[in-house]
Amino acid sequence: MTDGTGRPDEFGFIATYLAPLAEGCEGALGLKDDAALFSVPPGQSAVVTSDALIAGTHFRITDPADSQGAKALGVNLSDLASMGATPLGYTLILALPPDWTTDWAQGFTAGLAEYQDRYGIKLLGGDTVAIDGPLTIGVTAIGSVPGGGQLTRSGAAAGDDVWVSGTIGDAALALALSDRAGRLDAPDYAHLLTRFERPQPRLALGRNLIGLASAAIDVSDGLAADLGHLGRASGIGAVINVESLPLSGAARRCIEKEELSAEIVLNGGDDYELLFTAPPQSSGAILAAAEKSECAVSRIGNTNDGDSFRFIGKSGEDIDLETSGWTHF
Amino acid sequence: MTDGTGRPDEFGFIATYLAPLAEGCEGALGLKDDAALFSVPPGQSAVVTSDALIAGTHFRITDPADSQGAKALGVNLSDLASMGATPLGYTLILALPPDWTTDWAQGFTAGLAEYQDRYGIKLLGGDTVAIDGPLTIGVTAIGSVPGGGQLTRSGAAAGDDVWVSGTIGDAALALALSDRAGRLDAPDYAHLLTRFERPQPRLALGRNLIGLASAAIDVSDGLAADLGHLGRASGIGAVINVESLPLSGAARRCIEKEELSAEIVLNGGDDYELLFTAPPQSSGAILAAAEKSECAVSRIGNTNDGDSFRFIGKSGEDIDLETSGWTHF
Repeated sequence: MTDGTGRPDEFGFIATYLAPLAEGCEGALGLKDDAALFSVPPGQSAVVTSDALIAGTHFRITDPADSQGAKALGVNLSDLASMGATPLGYTLILALPPDWTTDWAQGFTAGLAEYQDRYGIKLLGGDTVAIDGPLTIGVTAIGSVPGGGQLTRSGAAAGDDVWVSGTIGDAALALALSDRAGRLDAPDYAHLLTRFERPQPRLALGRNLIGLASAAIDVSDGLAADLGHLGRASGIGAVINVESLPLSGAARRCIEKEELSAEIVLNGGDDYELLFTAPPQSSGAILAAAEKSECAVSRIGNTNDGDSFRFIGKSGEDIDLETSGWTHF
Repeated sequence: MTDGTGRPDEFGFIATYLAPLAEGCEGALGLKDDAALFSVPPGQSAVVTSDALIAGTHFRITDPADSQGAKALGVNLSDLASMGATPLGYTLILALPPDWTTDWAQGFTAGLAEYQDRYGIKLLGGDTVAIDGPLTIGVTAIGSVPGGGQLTRSGAAAGDDVWVSGTIGDAALALALSDRAGRLDAPDYAHLLTRFERPQPRLALGRNLIGLASAAIDVSDGLAADLGHLGRASGIGAVINVESLPLSGAARRCIEKEELSAEIVLNGGDDYELLFTAPPQSSGAILAAAEKSECAVSRIGNTNDGDSFRFIGKSGEDIDLETSGWTHF
């Protein structure tokens, strides 16, 4: 049945747009039952995380529909990555506003399908409802990790190296420069925008860091804020060398052209890179794990037995993040 | 930190209202990590279900805050019950509208705590966000079921008995009669309202029906609609004797006093009872399972090899549900 606009009702929506995402997954029961089944490999612990994305807050209503799907799944898989977990499947809560379109539904589910295929998982189940408010997407990702091997935020010790994967600041720059995109180098801005719209959960790296990293978190609130989360959970302080922060070429060029402060890469969120710690003697093994994961990593500082988080520049001077409105700690 | 109205920020909200719900659950990691850990007992399959509740749609904004929490968790546990699963834990997505109050948060989490305690589970994790729209609650419940033993909607065969647990129609009557509550017997209306606000997931019954029931579903859309879901999934038809439907004394008295049609109990939702099928020779075992579960069950009809779902009255006459606006099939 449709509602006269060509849009199917709840059961039609599930059959048309969601059931294909569950195809080939026996435990999803065709999305036609009350719950779904999944198996956790023997000797593994199960891992679960739930994240909500609300249109206008966690993504822009103007973002392509497929990137909305990719992001909803990607940010949840990033939480699994930070535990060293391997994804097993996910459920989807979808609260649709009155003006949803079939074009949006097709794009959104295409984005989910792309990420499902990339990370080898299927949709297990969920709930589709109407909301008199903004499009709201809730994903629960389920994974598994070798029993007792999970990475957490709380294992860092004083004297550990601090590492981060990939590059940081790209997504924050895409947002900050969205009204100036026209005067930037087009491929550069496209790179930043892709990083904002399509987070790359570092699942292989997380898995390969088990037994090596002492603590890990994914960078979603911004590197400075998430370092604080990890540091307080571990009871350590840290000093970060801002010169060591890995920036993409696009980010470097845009920062220079627009004369931006480096603080945007520390305070901006949505990187979905892994920030982790490890004892200095593990650095060779960390680099080998990164190579095996086909993911660059950079050593950006050290932990200490204090309780503050300092960011120092080229000449050892402190960079005061509070002046830029950064209030998390 | 608070926002000047005495309301904490996101991290304060988690620490004040949610962390106590995770206390004593090692795998929840104090709600301070990116994901949570849980164990599935050896030989069991894991089961997952996600349901969203939106204020004004799935519950009334005027419903007591504790019942909003109880309902959000209860309806998800009911999905586990219909599979015969035992709950292991849950995650919570909470999208808070601008006008949320600390009184509401205390009441809501008290309702969650009550249901947690009753069913022996803890909060594993989740996400708290702001929404410029209605309060939106997303729960993902996780459970386990003996490998291969799960109940599904699709196992019913022609000639099975059709059973339902507890009483039906109470919640629908509470809603339908809400503006006439003053002229009803107060304890009667209170009974109906409690049934609407605090669903009782039939977890013990579901577990004890494993190996006995051929198919099961929980009654959330209404008995007639959910019979259709189960019947179509199983490829059978059914005849239900309306006289056999189990009604509470309160429901009987209110229906009589207000001269309501019996159809309200067939079309109304929110019963959260188990509707299930079993071969006639299992009826003794079904009754024993029900007694063991301290939950009444009633035999209300039979399946057949057709594809229609008939409701017949005392003299064998068909009751035409379509005339009452019931359009699901």
